[in-house]
Amino acid sequence: MELHFAQRMSYIKASEIREILKVTQQEDVISFAGGLPAPELFPVEEINEISQLVLKEAGTKALQYTTAEGYAPLREWIAARMNLRLGTRLDKDNILITHGSQQGLDLSGKVFLDEEDLVLCESPTYLAAISAFKSYGCNFIEIPTDEDGMDMDALEKVLSTTPRIKLIYVIPTFQNPTGRTWSLERRKRLAELSAAYNIAVIEDNPYGELRFEGESLPSIKSFDKTGNILCTGSFSKIFCPGFRIGWIAGDKEIIRKYVLVKQGTDLQCNTLAQMTIARYLEKYDIDRHIAGIVEVYKKRRDVTVQCIRESFPDTIKFTNPEGGLFTWIELPEGVPARLVLDKCLEKKVAFVPGGSFYPGGNKENTLRINYSNMPEERIEQGIRIIGEVVKQYIREAE
Amino acid sequence: MELHFAQRMSYIKASEIREILKVTQQEDVISFAGGLPAPELFPVEEINEISQLVLKEAGTKALQYTTAEGYAPLREWIAARMNLRLGTRLDKDNILITHGSQQGLDLSGKVFLDEEDLVLCESPTYLAAISAFKSYGCNFIEIPTDEDGMDMDALEKVLSTTPRIKLIYVIPTFQNPTGRTWSLERRKRLAELSAAYNIAVIEDNPYGELRFEGESLPSIKSFDKTGNILCTGSFSKIFCPGFRIGWIAGDKEIIRKYVLVKQGTDLQCNTLAQMTIARYLEKYDIDRHIAGIVEVYKKRRDVTVQCIRESFPDTIKFTNPEGGLFTWIELPEGVPARLVLDKCLEKKVAFVPGGSFYPGGNKENTLRINYSNMPEERIEQGIRIIGEVVKQYIREAE
Repeated sequence: MELHFAQRMSYIKASEIREILKVTQQEDVISFAGGLPAPELFPVEEINEISQLVLKEAGTKALQYTTAEGYAPLREWIAARMNLRLGTRLDKDNILITHGSQQGLDLSGKVFLDEEDLVLCESPTYLAAISAFKSYGCNFIEIPTDEDGMDMDALEKVLSTTPRIKLIYVIPTFQNPTGRTWSLERRKRLAELSAAYNIAVIEDNPYGELRFEGESLPSIKSFDKTGNILCTGSFSKIFCPGFRIGWIAGDKEIIRKYVLVKQGTDLQCNTLAQMTIARYLEKYDIDRHIAGIVEVYKKRRDVTVQCIRESFPDTIKFTNPEGGLFTWIELPEGVPARLVLDKCLEKKVAFVPGGSFYPGGNKENTLRINYSNMPEERIEQGIRIIGEVVKQYIREAE
Repeated sequence: MELHFAQRMSYIKASEIREILKVTQQEDVISFAGGLPAPELFPVEEINEISQLVLKEAGTKALQYTTAEGYAPLREWIAARMNLRLGTRLDKDNILITHGSQQGLDLSGKVFLDEEDLVLCESPTYLAAISAFKSYGCNFIEIPTDEDGMDMDALEKVLSTTPRIKLIYVIPTFQNPTGRTWSLERRKRLAELSAAYNIAVIEDNPYGELRFEGESLPSIKSFDKTGNILCTGSFSKIFCPGFRIGWIAGDKEIIRKYVLVKQGTDLQCNTLAQMTIARYLEKYDIDRHIAGIVEVYKKRRDVTVQCIRESFPDTIKFTNPEGGLFTWIELPEGVPARLVLDKCLEKKVAFVPGGSFYPGGNKENTLRINYSNMPEERIEQGIRIIGEVVKQYIREAE
């Protein structure tokens, strides 16, 4: 006789990405499927040096329990960094250290969502945010997006007519999965709407530091007059993901609620990892390190975009992202990305079909390309193969 | 205008322990309040050496994303260790690595609990388990306990008459807060009742390795014939808590559900921390390390018990624990531990009043003493002070 599980377990399913990623663990597969940063850019030597230093300087303090809020010097750095880069006015008490920005999403679900509440999100949106929020029993309303971000008129219409909306979840900079960046005007407008309708916004920002070109934009949080906007961040894409150190920033009263919830969830994040990052930030120039990542990813983006232009039919649309890890391809209507994937996997090339990124399922003719984890020559090879498969599918369908 | 938070936020409150722990951060306070292991026993040198080794051997793999399940060699070690020490028959696919055993509790809530479901627990029980489960909207039924563990007849009566029970939560070895250990017979009986009523058991076991004397007992999980029993464990008390590495062990089908939930929650645990522990376990003799911890804690337990005998009135009851971190004192009826605490804090001595450990609030004349984090002479001083305050309270009340 099976045990009785929570109702949520009936809709928490193994994600398609997870299954694809299993295939991509074979060394000879060209994978555009994950969201993995380039490991060759991780500061291994520096981490080795700094963790020795921390263990020497702090000794057992680096291995003992610490506060749920996280290591104070790290929280101070994050606040200062956000103020400098994102136009916010925060101090350490606005910051909670989390297990990657993913945990910022999970804790947001815990703090805000009751069953049957509504979360508004971009269409498409980050797959694992859907999982994180869904485990609190919410439903989603997808708001249409274009090159400039979420459609604010469509959003306002939903806000003004729908009860039980608790959160608006957005990734305004180098969005996952589309690679798009919101315009300044939309950012301001979302902050206004959040205030007018008194709805919290989760501004997810794990990629914002990785800008290849164009002007940096202030965060939505910087236009927050009511304290309704929370902003996540992460060291995964600018340092290393294995440490699982990210953060959520927001109004102090709200962050205090998150701290209580964090404590019941897992007490705190890894003490040594937090101290190692903080000491690294003191001793090394993270801007220089980030510039190195940006240089490599920009080249990979260039090759990706160039090859898409050359190898795909003219009838597709795609993003030329100004930063981040992803581009997004819209195939001609009726070309199913899942079928294209099956053919590509036979040729040892992987990506994620775009349908997964729509909470309601949709747009089976889209696909997400991650270009950060493959060297240029393999990107070239891989994109050509996908292009070929798409062209052949179209030829055969005609 | 305040935002609308989830209903659970109305009953997630700052814990009393958290407030007391703030006081205990002053160096001159003698604290029996936390559950902190003795930092002077952390293997700092070895961790330093091994993490260098891991970064040298595994390089960027130690800093990259890994699977949600956790690092395979570490899961293998845990399964083998449990089989050896706890009488289970597990392999790595029975194990999920979690952020301390605390996260094992949180994920258990997520996997099993709908709002208004019931959790049965020992009375008293671990405070942060109450917080973890409560955030899923459950209610608690406390089952009476005595020196041999939970009262099985009382448990069966509740099981046979109450709908919506989803979990039975127990800490059968060196219980927090009481320091008590369940008899073999009760362990067997709980496994039988779990099977007969088809209710999952969470057997929380963060202290089991720290036995000072007496015979080791098999885990409840070892008597599990239906796969209904899950068992948590942790490296916090035998290695260091700052790494935030623990585990949950159970039936493979159920662990797969936990893995899905873990993925949406925070993707995975720290890769380097997992690899460092695994490599340490290969290279060093953890049994020897644990023997060192046991030797120190046993002395501290001895002093604690000796001083309680000498300094407290004869009318109290207390546990002489066979292992672990805690003892538990029951003051005479009508002596409120919270008032005693206030007086003790004036004299720079802290502990946790026992009332907090009862989900329904109760037994204000009890208190928990943690003896692992203070040297013997301070334990002596501190216990004498508490004893004095108690005696004085009784004198004044008479």
